[in-house]
Amino acid sequence: MVKRSGQKKIVLASGVFDLIHLGHVKFLEEAKKAGGLDAQLVVVVARDSTVEKTKGKKPIMPEDQRCSLVESLKVVDKAVLGYENLNIGEVIENIKPSVIALGYDQDDMMKQVLDYVNKNKVEVKIVRIGKFGENGLDSSSKIKKEIIDKRERLSYAESKFGHSNEL
Amino acid sequence: MVKRSGQKKIVLASGVFDLIHLGHVKFLEEAKKAGGLDAQLVVVVARDSTVEKTKGKKPIMPEDQRCSLVESLKVVDKAVLGYENLNIGEVIENIKPSVIALGYDQDDMMKQVLDYVNKNKVEVKIVRIGKFGENGLDSSSKIKKEIIDKRERLSYAESKFGHSNEL
Repeated sequence: MVKRSGQKKIVLASGVFDLIHLGHVKFLEEAKKAGGLDAQLVVVVARDSTVEKTKGKKPIMPEDQRCSLVESLKVVDKAVLGYENLNIGEVIENIKPSVIALGYDQDDMMKQVLDYVNKNKVEVKIVRIGKFGENGLDSSSKIKKEIIDKRERLSYAESKFGHSNEL
Repeated sequence: MVKRSGQKKIVLASGVFDLIHLGHVKFLEEAKKAGGLDAQLVVVVARDSTVEKTKGKKPIMPEDQRCSLVESLKVVDKAVLGYENLNIGEVIENIKPSVIALGYDQDDMMKQVLDYVNKNKVEVKIVRIGKFGENGLDSSSKIKKEIIDKRERLSYAESKFGHSNEL
């Protein structure tokens, strides 16, 4: 359980954070800003089992490593693993955020949060954070695609020109 | 140019930091510890061109994103891009570290540092940081391999069972 300390606002953000990239950091920085000066940013990192259920496959990095890595970011005050059975209500009741920040690609989470908040009349500000720049590897899927494409180009070069290159 | 502030020791670490993982963070934490209490950690992030020259291929993430991401880590006080033509002497003269920390996989850099330091009688402590745990994706190559293996398993499943799965 995360307690509020003094008058500091708690901002809650969540995500998988499989391969950490600048898009994640910028999302978290914008999220924290939404809580004003001295806000504390608490990040809920999705469990492997939850990701497998919702996306049909486990993340590349195991949950404990994803969580530790998120907590090692300057912008993050605390990172915690989500619940085995994703229950956004429980998360909100425990963390008691003043602000919930959602990323551009978190439509499902947005719906769940709105449902819970409206049903239970929870006083919380909900902010949606936009996508950052198009000119970079700012999504985990793009990074994975680049790694695979690069590998395929190497395999092609190997078969055509007979030279190999380590991964 | 990075200046020494007061009596704080500067620890210098360097690397490519292509896909940031916990192994990187632990390396940097150990590096900083080697400078004692209140040490400042300055990290030199390798240029794309230097990586291409030494490893035969560019990193997945562009240099500016790798550098910003390293600087967004709590343990890092400052991250700077290396010089186009890797010149460890110039780096040492500019940053004036009290400690230079080298990772388990930085044999070449170790040799260059020792050569320069011995030749120029530079007073600096050199520490070698060990490898961390074997039970995780603690190297960028392992992460890339896992992404490619996963893709190949999916392609096999698609060809065999006719179902597809997004990246």
